[in-house]
Amino acid sequence: MTATNRQIRLAARPSGTVRPEDWEHHTAPVAEPGPGQFAGRTRVISLDPAMRGWLDDRPSYLPPVGIGEVMRAGSVIEVTASDHPGFQPGDQVLGTFGVQEYAVSDGKGAMKIDTSLAPASTYLGALGMPGMTAYFGLLDVGALKEGETVVVSGAAGAVGSIVGQIAKIKGCRVVGIAGGPEKCALLTGELGFDAAIDYREGDIRQRLRELTPDGIDVYFDNVGGDILDAALTRLAMHARVVICGAISQYNNTTPVSGPSNYLSLLVRRARMEGFVVFDYAKRYAEAAQEIAGWIGDGRIKVKEHVVKGGVDDFPETFQMLFRGDNVGKLVLDLG
Amino acid sequence: MTATNRQIRLAARPSGTVRPEDWEHHTAPVAEPGPGQFAGRTRVISLDPAMRGWLDDRPSYLPPVGIGEVMRAGSVIEVTASDHPGFQPGDQVLGTFGVQEYAVSDGKGAMKIDTSLAPASTYLGALGMPGMTAYFGLLDVGALKEGETVVVSGAAGAVGSIVGQIAKIKGCRVVGIAGGPEKCALLTGELGFDAAIDYREGDIRQRLRELTPDGIDVYFDNVGGDILDAALTRLAMHARVVICGAISQYNNTTPVSGPSNYLSLLVRRARMEGFVVFDYAKRYAEAAQEIAGWIGDGRIKVKEHVVKGGVDDFPETFQMLFRGDNVGKLVLDLG
Repeated sequence: MTATNRQIRLAARPSGTVRPEDWEHHTAPVAEPGPGQFAGRTRVISLDPAMRGWLDDRPSYLPPVGIGEVMRAGSVIEVTASDHPGFQPGDQVLGTFGVQEYAVSDGKGAMKIDTSLAPASTYLGALGMPGMTAYFGLLDVGALKEGETVVVSGAAGAVGSIVGQIAKIKGCRVVGIAGGPEKCALLTGELGFDAAIDYREGDIRQRLRELTPDGIDVYFDNVGGDILDAALTRLAMHARVVICGAISQYNNTTPVSGPSNYLSLLVRRARMEGFVVFDYAKRYAEAAQEIAGWIGDGRIKVKEHVVKGGVDDFPETFQMLFRGDNVGKLVLDLG
Repeated sequence: MTATNRQIRLAARPSGTVRPEDWEHHTAPVAEPGPGQFAGRTRVISLDPAMRGWLDDRPSYLPPVGIGEVMRAGSVIEVTASDHPGFQPGDQVLGTFGVQEYAVSDGKGAMKIDTSLAPASTYLGALGMPGMTAYFGLLDVGALKEGETVVVSGAAGAVGSIVGQIAKIKGCRVVGIAGGPEKCALLTGELGFDAAIDYREGDIRQRLRELTPDGIDVYFDNVGGDILDAALTRLAMHARVVICGAISQYNNTTPVSGPSNYLSLLVRRARMEGFVVFDYAKRYAEAAQEIAGWIGDGRIKVKEHVVKGGVDDFPETFQMLFRGDNVGKLVLDLG
């Protein structure tokens, strides 16, 4: 047991791909919980593409991480000491505790989890933000109906893999877009998608034409760029384009590439809509319960990419997201 | 009375700006109405930016005008001969009769109008497609609510001028974007907009920041391009972007410029939606009645730009739309 707390702090605002020197590897003393607080040791840290956006100093749905601040991240900690009536030593707690070995919290936004029901990592994935994002994005924003055709990009990622599986549960035809033959084989194999498109091979538009003969009713976009533009050429009448993310654009140093084919929204009487999952916080419990049921009866397969290491491995692990190295939810497991 | 029928036919598919040689000035014999048909003399022809899209051979909400075909256009004709029980000589009839001096029709899509209530040109403008487009686009697609902030581009045009006035009737703050000081003076003067932005002068984003302190709730877009991108930077939470047209892009020879700032849809939980007014055909009567009432009590001022001439003046008159030469609804009046 060490008395120091290793932390990853933001050293500089990155331009484009985050460089190692944009992070500071910092050692702080382990803080004691103050009145009404609890302290804990980090067990597992979430890594998500959206975290790249938190590094840019521009208006967004959360303020940017400040220079010198501990990097914001969701994580699960095990409580080690507590002056908070709701949290006891030994409790496993989900919250936004940052990329550090030890955290102190007043309990705001923190939630006890039961790791006998699901591993801690799953509370960061299928039962956490990515699962909630897939659920509300597809069913609420996308207004999915039985029998429709759904296309999802980033389909082998934390959100996309759940989107496709929920769409199958809802009786839809599902085409996933992912990078590489292994991911595509996972989609059409274990995850039960109807078809997969490897965006690194061949002509995406041509493949979409073949695989969506009746057009796309719901396109769930995690990537932006050329793939969004290709999907726009295949919209069915009254289609819904759900804008969840744009990982292809996050490391741009040039302006974001806007969807050149956006006028198909007019021709196809379609809509493109963005959302932020935090707006659904009051309904997380409902979604988590339903997803847990689907996991329990085997209709949703949970894919997690667990990197075992320390907080100092965060910068390199984070880059895996943008290289497409991960399959399913990426987490850093501190053991 | 001549026995010949001057027509404007499409001679070649234009690339970019339509050239005079893309049109054929054709002389045909005047046709007699067959069984169940009526014939008439064209009085006034509608000119609309959307007609540019009909010249391109690509999938859209209507098939393209064929090479050698009479140019498609809405118009009002006066019936001269009829074997159709619903139409008698002397009737004024609204329909898609094309750019020609004389037309024959089986009555499909044709509607008798009462020119004692409003001039024929108004049935092509405020009481016709542009009025219907403004009404359903703003109220239905835009889901406008009292007290919201509305920004409309192409604000001095046939659609935009009605959009802004309806938004004022509905108790909204209205900012119009138009080209040149005369149009802007019209907007804030006679048409009662709260503010106007001359897109040819100064920084549109800066002006939008000043004029929409609470952000934009409904952005009604007729132009696309940089102005759409500027509006996207100012969206309020849960904003609606109504995609009606993109006149800045219609004569492009390069790919359409997509909205680089589309990710603000995500940050602002906003939607961008396209529509085609024909889908509202069953509700035209409802809208026309309400608009006629507003015209009658002076709450909507009808702006029309009437060019007097013959069908041979159509090609040159059509270009006025893309130079922004017209104020309000542009029509060609054959007298």
